[in-house]
Amino acid sequence: MQDALARLDEYWIGQGCLTVQPMNTEVGAGTLNPATFLRVLGPEPWRVAYVEPSVRPDDARYGENPNRIQCHTQYQVIIKPEPGNAQELYLGSLAALGIDVHEHDVRFVEDNWASPALGAWGLGWEVWLDGLEITQFTYFQQAGGVNLKPVSVEITYGIERILMALQGVRHFKEIRYAPGVTYGEVFGQSEYEMSRYALDDADVESTRRMLDLFAAEAQRMIDLRLPIPAHTFVLKCSHAFNVLDARGAISTAERTAEFARMRKMSAAVAELWVERRAELEHPLGVASAAEPAAAPAVTPAAGTGARRLVLEVGVEEMPPSEARSAVTQLRTLVTEALATTRLEHGVIAVDATPRRLVAVVDDVAAREADHERIVRGPRLTAAFGPDGSPTPAALGFARSQKTDVDALERVDVDGVTYLAVVRKEQGRDVLTALSGALATAVGTLRSAKNMRWSDPQLSFTRPIRWIAALWGDEVVPFTVGALAAGRTTRVLRSSAQPQFDVASAEEFTDKLAAAGIVLSTQARRETIVEGAVKLAASVGGHVDVDGEAALLDQIAYLVEAPTPVLGSFEVDYLRVPHAILTTVMRKHQRYLPVRDQDGGLQPYFVTIANGAIDEDVVRAGNEGVLRARFEDASFFFVADSEVAPEQMRTRLTTLTFADKLGSMRDRADRISAIAARLADAVDLDAADRAVLDQARELVKFDLGSQMVTELTSLAGVMAREYALGAGKPEPVAQALLEVELPRSAGDTLPATPAGAILSLADRLDYLCGLAATVGLPTGSSDQYALRRAALGLQAVHRATAVLFPLSLVDGLRIAAAQQPVDVPDAVLDGIGEFLGRRLEQALSEEGVPVDRARAVMLHSDRPALVDALLRRLQQLEDDEDFRRLVETMQRIRRIVPAGTAPTYAAEVLSEPAELRLHGALQAVAGSLGDVTDLAAFARDTRELNAAVTAFFEDVFVMAHEPEVRAARLGLLAAVADLGTPALYWEHLRGA
Amino acid sequence: MQDALARLDEYWIGQGCLTVQPMNTEVGAGTLNPATFLRVLGPEPWRVAYVEPSVRPDDARYGENPNRIQCHTQYQVIIKPEPGNAQELYLGSLAALGIDVHEHDVRFVEDNWASPALGAWGLGWEVWLDGLEITQFTYFQQAGGVNLKPVSVEITYGIERILMALQGVRHFKEIRYAPGVTYGEVFGQSEYEMSRYALDDADVESTRRMLDLFAAEAQRMIDLRLPIPAHTFVLKCSHAFNVLDARGAISTAERTAEFARMRKMSAAVAELWVERRAELEHPLGVASAAEPAAAPAVTPAAGTGARRLVLEVGVEEMPPSEARSAVTQLRTLVTEALATTRLEHGVIAVDATPRRLVAVVDDVAAREADHERIVRGPRLTAAFGPDGSPTPAALGFARSQKTDVDALERVDVDGVTYLAVVRKEQGRDVLTALSGALATAVGTLRSAKNMRWSDPQLSFTRPIRWIAALWGDEVVPFTVGALAAGRTTRVLRSSAQPQFDVASAEEFTDKLAAAGIVLSTQARRETIVEGAVKLAASVGGHVDVDGEAALLDQIAYLVEAPTPVLGSFEVDYLRVPHAILTTVMRKHQRYLPVRDQDGGLQPYFVTIANGAIDEDVVRAGNEGVLRARFEDASFFFVADSEVAPEQMRTRLTTLTFADKLGSMRDRADRISAIAARLADAVDLDAADRAVLDQARELVKFDLGSQMVTELTSLAGVMAREYALGAGKPEPVAQALLEVELPRSAGDTLPATPAGAILSLADRLDYLCGLAATVGLPTGSSDQYALRRAALGLQAVHRATAVLFPLSLVDGLRIAAAQQPVDVPDAVLDGIGEFLGRRLEQALSEEGVPVDRARAVMLHSDRPALVDALLRRLQQLEDDEDFRRLVETMQRIRRIVPAGTAPTYAAEVLSEPAELRLHGALQAVAGSLGDVTDLAAFARDTRELNAAVTAFFEDVFVMAHEPEVRAARLGLLAAVADLGTPALYWEHLRGA
Repeated sequence: MQDALARLDEYWIGQGCLTVQPMNTEVGAGTLNPATFLRVLGPEPWRVAYVEPSVRPDDARYGENPNRIQCHTQYQVIIKPEPGNAQELYLGSLAALGIDVHEHDVRFVEDNWASPALGAWGLGWEVWLDGLEITQFTYFQQAGGVNLKPVSVEITYGIERILMALQGVRHFKEIRYAPGVTYGEVFGQSEYEMSRYALDDADVESTRRMLDLFAAEAQRMIDLRLPIPAHTFVLKCSHAFNVLDARGAISTAERTAEFARMRKMSAAVAELWVERRAELEHPLGVASAAEPAAAPAVTPAAGTGARRLVLEVGVEEMPPSEARSAVTQLRTLVTEALATTRLEHGVIAVDATPRRLVAVVDDVAAREADHERIVRGPRLTAAFGPDGSPTPAALGFARSQKTDVDALERVDVDGVTYLAVVRKEQGRDVLTALSGALATAVGTLRSAKNMRWSDPQLSFTRPIRWIAALWGDEVVPFTVGALAAGRTTRVLRSSAQPQFDVASAEEFTDKLAAAGIVLSTQARRETIVEGAVKLAASVGGHVDVDGEAALLDQIAYLVEAPTPVLGSFEVDYLRVPHAILTTVMRKHQRYLPVRDQDGGLQPYFVTIANGAIDEDVVRAGNEGVLRARFEDASFFFVADSEVAPEQMRTRLTTLTFADKLGSMRDRADRISAIAARLADAVDLDAADRAVLDQARELVKFDLGSQMVTELTSLAGVMAREYALGAGKPEPVAQALLEVELPRSAGDTLPATPAGAILSLADRLDYLCGLAATVGLPTGSSDQYALRRAALGLQAVHRATAVLFPLSLVDGLRIAAAQQPVDVPDAVLDGIGEFLGRRLEQALSEEGVPVDRARAVMLHSDRPALVDALLRRLQQLEDDEDFRRLVETMQRIRRIVPAGTAPTYAAEVLSEPAELRLHGALQAVAGSLGDVTDLAAFARDTRELNAAVTAFFEDVFVMAHEPEVRAARLGLLAAVADLGTPALYWEHLRGA
Repeated sequence: MQDALARLDEYWIGQGCLTVQPMNTEVGAGTLNPATFLRVLGPEPWRVAYVEPSVRPDDARYGENPNRIQCHTQYQVIIKPEPGNAQELYLGSLAALGIDVHEHDVRFVEDNWASPALGAWGLGWEVWLDGLEITQFTYFQQAGGVNLKPVSVEITYGIERILMALQGVRHFKEIRYAPGVTYGEVFGQSEYEMSRYALDDADVESTRRMLDLFAAEAQRMIDLRLPIPAHTFVLKCSHAFNVLDARGAISTAERTAEFARMRKMSAAVAELWVERRAELEHPLGVASAAEPAAAPAVTPAAGTGARRLVLEVGVEEMPPSEARSAVTQLRTLVTEALATTRLEHGVIAVDATPRRLVAVVDDVAAREADHERIVRGPRLTAAFGPDGSPTPAALGFARSQKTDVDALERVDVDGVTYLAVVRKEQGRDVLTALSGALATAVGTLRSAKNMRWSDPQLSFTRPIRWIAALWGDEVVPFTVGALAAGRTTRVLRSSAQPQFDVASAEEFTDKLAAAGIVLSTQARRETIVEGAVKLAASVGGHVDVDGEAALLDQIAYLVEAPTPVLGSFEVDYLRVPHAILTTVMRKHQRYLPVRDQDGGLQPYFVTIANGAIDEDVVRAGNEGVLRARFEDASFFFVADSEVAPEQMRTRLTTLTFADKLGSMRDRADRISAIAARLADAVDLDAADRAVLDQARELVKFDLGSQMVTELTSLAGVMAREYALGAGKPEPVAQALLEVELPRSAGDTLPATPAGAILSLADRLDYLCGLAATVGLPTGSSDQYALRRAALGLQAVHRATAVLFPLSLVDGLRIAAAQQPVDVPDAVLDGIGEFLGRRLEQALSEEGVPVDRARAVMLHSDRPALVDALLRRLQQLEDDEDFRRLVETMQRIRRIVPAGTAPTYAAEVLSEPAELRLHGALQAVAGSLGDVTDLAAFARDTRELNAAVTAFFEDVFVMAHEPEVRAARLGLLAAVADLGTPALYWEHLRGA
């Protein structure tokens, strides 16, 4: 291993890097070393490479886990300004390490980086070597809240991982550190002891006090304008925080507060550093700003016939979602670009791979058609005086057009004759016309999240590195930012000829294809599916193409030249719950699981490599990675399985939930109690109640498992597994899964009453506790995801029949009673309103018209009832009586002024129509039945309805006699205010 | 610079070293990295090399000082077990750095290392490259209080220094760190800011609290048996302490307490580590123990005539004092060794260079003479019975000698005949005889401070690496420890042939001489003097050979092959006070200053290189070193000179003196007040008083200077310089120097009354304050050097006439009144006794007979009076009357029983002699004059004396009548108890 570090030093020194020593206080990553964090700020150039032992107390595993180390070795490179070819330099460093990039599948997989505590972020990738994440590669955009200019590129190697792969060992302790000495022999004891410190033995109270002392010193140093010591103390804060976190001593609120404090201090440090360097007049000089490319000379096209146009925008690996949306965008931009010309053209086709956006336009004319441009002057009638001499208007127009009145022509527009100048304009040649249009198109490209690099103008999801633009066999000459369009394209970096010139637009896609690039996303996806299916079939399995659709869509944008590779894993791992295995395969590795005919998991997977690789090497590498991940998972599974759920649940005591709200154990106990009260409030049958009562005792116990600590997305899933493993009844296990549902919008909902009640109890507790302590979210930020909790709460209520009678407001009161803090009525009211707004929003997103939604909001505490009412309203849309009733009521509301009291002196009424309506109203008011049965109500008000119609026909409402007028208006108001059902009137009011 | 580090890595990896990363918490030296501190413990082998940025807050200079850096770069190598050739490996590493060791003067200069805080020590050297200390080289003996076995060798390179020398730059910021980038550009700002933190801005209270938190965590980790985290926290303690220290916030008592705490914790960590590694069954294996050399086959010498014997013990560079005493020791050991043989031999000559001890014995016989050994049995008279048959005694003797009675011989001893066995023993051959004797001699060699290395038996000041032992042309075969004697010697490491065989003892010294080694110390010293004088003369100067005698003695033991080199420095530096320059030259560099005829300093020096070097290279190197040191000194001098003494004195406020005793400023104020009171108490003339009063106002102001902060030995010297520079009168300046005198036993004493009073006040304050707070020293430890203060106090009193009437006990009372703490009478009494013991010891060391010293101890509070009395006693030794008086008194004391009351009934006396004595006693008692004039007293008691003599002649004291006997005894007792002067009687009592 020490040789590898030496080789990296040698390589990067050869690239002009300095080497410095690791930071002499504990850091979690090389990024925190001032050689990165401070040096990326400001205008000075900087190239550095160094080793950084990175301490992550949370990763402590006593040295037992084969892949997890509390102090791992990072190798960190910073190049500032980013040099334009950092990816290529990086590949060179792999070669220096002895990795043949032609054999291996090296990929840049989207992975953006952000450190809230540092106020820093960047865009980039994790680099995969045969599926193994070996490097983080980031274009720094901001540090300490300061926008970085120039932009630095950061390359962070995970040395132990790389060495394990290179040496083919399965446990980090087996890495050959130096001749005859293993990593374990050198660092094994330290891993164990520092793990003990981090996980078990660091004194929480002392560490907390250290943290506060460090923070105070950091702030003092900032006040004294000393960014370097200040930064050192910020790092010490960070480490102390990490230790507390690993000890489970950080509440959610504390985390938020500490991050805010560190972010604020980091920002101050960064700002100070920038100022201080300026005061020192930038000892290392100032990096020269990136220059725009010189404007190209545009000479007319030589060709005369219509030709194909190809525009290729070469980008460093785009994230799949960005590539997908960029295709749409480029199509629009190219269409618009062509529309700014008068060029005739054929179909516009746009497609993308991870590294390129390509627009192909067939039959683009060689020239624009010539055309006349008419500049309109005054009307002819206003152009000449009675004596025939031109008016000042005519003279002025002629002067402005630099011509004489005599030379003006007459044109007719909509039957009116105007003086006008008619200019004959020659159509531009295609290259001239496209030059500016394409420059605009490329310069306008943006993504959802854009970055800057060393370009004076461009900004996109990842750096744009080249542009090819061909019309027929001629280059469309234009520049944008620092780039000039040409005829050179780039293909796979591992190709014999990674870049070459293309003779003509017509052969462009063929040349790409010849280099292995499948330009069409659809074709790539098909190639992938076809290959995967075939490989799966070769071992008697198949791939669930429909089930894996989302994953396939993603993979199609991860490779340019899909090369499916079949891998296998040891059958033994299949004893691990398959949910775990597929989660690992899909989420972490983007592997396609192979299944048997019944959907059962097989010990195979398909990974899609990029380009021509050595299949055996890539297979072996990916298998190794999966083995390590499965080994991890299996390790946790076995370890967890040895712990009884009841026992595991006791561990929740050590997990802090939130400030003032106790531990996770406290929270689980509250959920249990709340669930019991909820069950009392609804009509639960005895069997369900028994299930619930068993599940309550164990609720959330799996948060105490190693698996869930590692793979939090498996919370609930593991509860079910471990409960079953421990012999709990299936329904109980299911309920323990369902308490976690839904995990996100659109996720599965609890299917059983017990699960639903637990899920409800979970969310009621969460909302109540956090609203009472940190408050409800305002604005766009929602750090504690209270909105998600609210939506989940309502989704469960809506989906679960047994919960129908339950008011969530009552539920909140039940939850409030369990909180360790006071939950005032005002807070409960606030949550109620918050829930109302969420429900309204959810309904709106589901397409419920806003008026109808508002009509039912009175019952927002019972979302299931809301749904029932909405369904009813929907049905009534086709009810003749109801529609008529609505129309009638609307008519009344149009006539009766707002605020009219719904009372009237019946004795004043005399007209038959008046009396009829009075009678009908009396009858209805006396017989109002079930408020919710709107159809019956509409039926029951048929006579009332007819009476209203007759009234309007026969009676002039606005009578001269005030008392008569008042009585008539009052009568109508009383009809309109029939009052119940309120929702009905609400509905009408909204209409 | 980064290249140099890479080259060192490469070199040491080639020597089987691991490389590890620097410690990720601040350390003051690479030694503290667990890769050293922990790994040197226990039996596991370990070879490691690493860079260690070493933080020393105390060395912070804002990056302004060209040679002082708060974070300097160490390169640390540990080889365990020490490989036997670490010096040679080290020289190889210099070659790897591009240093031609044949051109340069590379020397190993005694420098032992001890870290009280770590409970660690070792013996070794600082390595000089042309006078520049570039490396620390230590054989670790103990760490954390644990004896190390095997012994490790530690090599610590000072990278910045080496690079400055190699690159020929004069400021660390100018070091070329990487192509196109200087050290200053990379680290300059950090130096400034971290200096600000360390010197000015670290919050003392916070840092103190951190220190306590760290210490508590360290102790907890120890209690939990986790040595690695415990060590980490000990390091954090150490750094926090260093910051506090640099901030001037550590009192003497605090320092002691913190060191004790850290030492205790380090010991616990070390012990734990050893235990834990044993529990882990020593993952790196166990280093094989050093084996003793196989016993040699001894074959008789071939030669027959007497030949020269040479014994050479080859040692790694010995400290001069050890080499000197080893010569004496080896002479004794070889003499004794020869005495255990019967070999005839000539003169034994022993000499030494730094690397060898050589004994040459001329004319050692080839064989011991044969001889008879007689075993004596019973007397002949007791051997045979009357019947001539052997008695049991004779039979028993014969049996014990395994012979028959008949075979016994008869021998005469002192005229008595005995039975005896006479054995003829053949003399041994010289090689056989010497083999064991020389092995014992070498194995018995010891130094004042011994070390262990990888030898199973030997222990000495430095490792013994080879033994040559030749008798004539034959090897005297013996082994000791792992070494076997041979005929190979080693000469200069830079020689073309650094080791070779020597054919015979007779040519041994010639061969050494031919290789440039001057074996005779006397000859080396002469060579040095001669060369230095000649070089000095070449620039019109000379060397003060007598004045530099001690330095010359030392230099003679620093080189084997003296090569004087003349160097110069810029004349400009001569404006710096010469005391500073010579201190730097002598103490730091062992250079001989060159002076003009009047003793004035010239801008030249002579350094003595070892062996054949490139004179220009060595000169340039040494000049560079001196320049840097002078630059430092000059920098401080100029900076200090810009500060008025009054201003400088205000800085004393920031220097803590001692716990509870305030700052140095408080102490200086106390000294001033005490001096005023002392002056009141003695008869000081007005001029002296004026000087004193001026000096009091500034006393100790130079402790606030940068120079004294750097070169503490210049305290006082700088006060004088800076005071003169600021225009203070010469006597005032002198007094400000003299307050610091004497700095050690035998140092110059204050010459002026004002200086003496200040010196006294200084020491009275020191003793009083510390005795009242930390107590007087007990046993052998005296951390605060109170004994030295006491001796200084008394030396000043004894040397200063004006102080004669002053009682130091009164002085202590004056000092006590000034202390910020209560000084109880018991403490003052304690100091009085302590002073008495010190004075007694001083007198004893000066050769005053203990009885006479005791006789004057009554006046120990006035040492000057004690001296006067002792002088008087000395004079009286030749006074006839006094001697007679003493004899008389002694005679009386022999006769009169102890406790006899000095009273008698005069009326009982009747004999003339009785009456004469009674009369004489009455006369003397009535006329007793000046008690101190013993001579007069003796003269005045002539008649008394004569009367006593007559009494003894005529009177039988022990008369039968009890009353007469009582009267006579009482009379004599009264004479003996003449009482005054008490000292006189004391003296007599002691006799």
